[in-house]
Amino acid sequence: MTRTRIGICAPSTPIYPEEVEQLITLAAASHPDAELVFHEQCFAIAGHFAGEDDLRSAAFVELANDPTLDAIWFARGGYGAARIADTILERLTPAAGNKLYMGYSDGGNLLGALYKSGIGTQAHGPMPVDIRRDNGDIAVRRALDWLVDRNPAALESHVQPNQSYAAFNLMTLAMMVGTPLLPDLRGHILMIEEIAEYLYAFDRALFNVTSHLADAGLSGLYLGRVSDVPENNRPFGEEVEEIVSRWCEHTNIPYLGRADIGHDMENKIVPFGKLSD
Amino acid sequence: MTRTRIGICAPSTPIYPEEVEQLITLAAASHPDAELVFHEQCFAIAGHFAGEDDLRSAAFVELANDPTLDAIWFARGGYGAARIADTILERLTPAAGNKLYMGYSDGGNLLGALYKSGIGTQAHGPMPVDIRRDNGDIAVRRALDWLVDRNPAALESHVQPNQSYAAFNLMTLAMMVGTPLLPDLRGHILMIEEIAEYLYAFDRALFNVTSHLADAGLSGLYLGRVSDVPENNRPFGEEVEEIVSRWCEHTNIPYLGRADIGHDMENKIVPFGKLSD
Repeated sequence: MTRTRIGICAPSTPIYPEEVEQLITLAAASHPDAELVFHEQCFAIAGHFAGEDDLRSAAFVELANDPTLDAIWFARGGYGAARIADTILERLTPAAGNKLYMGYSDGGNLLGALYKSGIGTQAHGPMPVDIRRDNGDIAVRRALDWLVDRNPAALESHVQPNQSYAAFNLMTLAMMVGTPLLPDLRGHILMIEEIAEYLYAFDRALFNVTSHLADAGLSGLYLGRVSDVPENNRPFGEEVEEIVSRWCEHTNIPYLGRADIGHDMENKIVPFGKLSD
Repeated sequence: MTRTRIGICAPSTPIYPEEVEQLITLAAASHPDAELVFHEQCFAIAGHFAGEDDLRSAAFVELANDPTLDAIWFARGGYGAARIADTILERLTPAAGNKLYMGYSDGGNLLGALYKSGIGTQAHGPMPVDIRRDNGDIAVRRALDWLVDRNPAALESHVQPNQSYAAFNLMTLAMMVGTPLLPDLRGHILMIEEIAEYLYAFDRALFNVTSHLADAGLSGLYLGRVSDVPENNRPFGEEVEEIVSRWCEHTNIPYLGRADIGHDMENKIVPFGKLSD
């Protein structure tokens, strides 16, 4: 039996040590050929972050450069990856190129930067922290289905061979566009999702992102779920799909409909680039 | 006596009709040579906005192109100006160039776009809606001191002749950088302020803005007030000035210290460009 060794570190915010046992038990039952290798840094705390910038980047580099690991799985999002992405990239060795990197939300900063640099393969998909959700075990198993088996049943249903994709949390993407972390998205279908933003902030982020990407040569855009929208003191006046399709029309980006991604247990896998890569 | 006629419209969100009387009474007492001309559109409501995009842009264009007005004052921020800035610019006539435009917060989208287009002069300063604040009358009078008299006592104290400035709400700027609304800031001193953002979101917005502006040739950056920061479930671990000076150092933008602007009644005037313009 070939074992798949998955290194887990936390480029953004920490998880709890007691979650490790849950995750290892789950993986042992559903994916006995997987080995979850948790870096101690997953549990470090420095204010908002899973340790200071130096600690987080060192843990990532250590795992990424470890030739005995097959994949790097980001423990959790929450903000922090953008602060270390540049220092990580310059310290990666060829061993980092033979890996799959997976996460979402703030982890999109690293997915984007690694994809841009052509280092390994990347997928937008559930993270270890999703074990906290109701039925979160389903999300974690789906992640393992991709990390370990590349099981196509884990994929977002619109993902087709020979088409390039990228997927991001909208606010994360809004803060990436125009920075050195953003990959070239020419010919790509982009999927976005959002959580916990007022609709005016969602609209504003789309102004930003679609303005930036108007001339980026996107093949189209799918909208994932937009969840936990806070109530404002007055209704915004448009639904999320109206907002997205309006900005897409304004910037000549083909709007393609809804995608099955989001900050929830249904979050499906979206590999970056082409499936055949 | 030369009267200064100030046209007031709401490119973003509405004010209440009952605030007009307060503002007119205040202006009559302190600036009898000022005439406040409120456009009916200030009170329109369409979901989040002070009327639909078409109504808001039409009101702005009508006032801006009115040769009998000396200034355009944005009634209130709140989001909406970015949706209409491009359609406004293309409909302005030479009369729009003989005016001072003033506002802040979401109004920065229009200040930036007008400055970029070389249409009129612009100033970051209090708005009619500030009458709602405790001692808001002081902020409104300060705005009139600049709108009517160009009284230098109204200026932010760091503003010097022969130096170019621009001032923005940070989140507004984060959503403008890289869009067609952002002016060329080469040689400018930039002042920023923020309200009601988590410190992680403040840090993230600075990652975005300083990455964008690293090569923009800024002469320096001042930090205004950062107010109403929501409490997160854990402390961020850095104070606002540490955050700003760190990102400035990372991107070689000279950090110059604190500025006297913010979402409050102390908000001082920052003219765009050079004072002598």
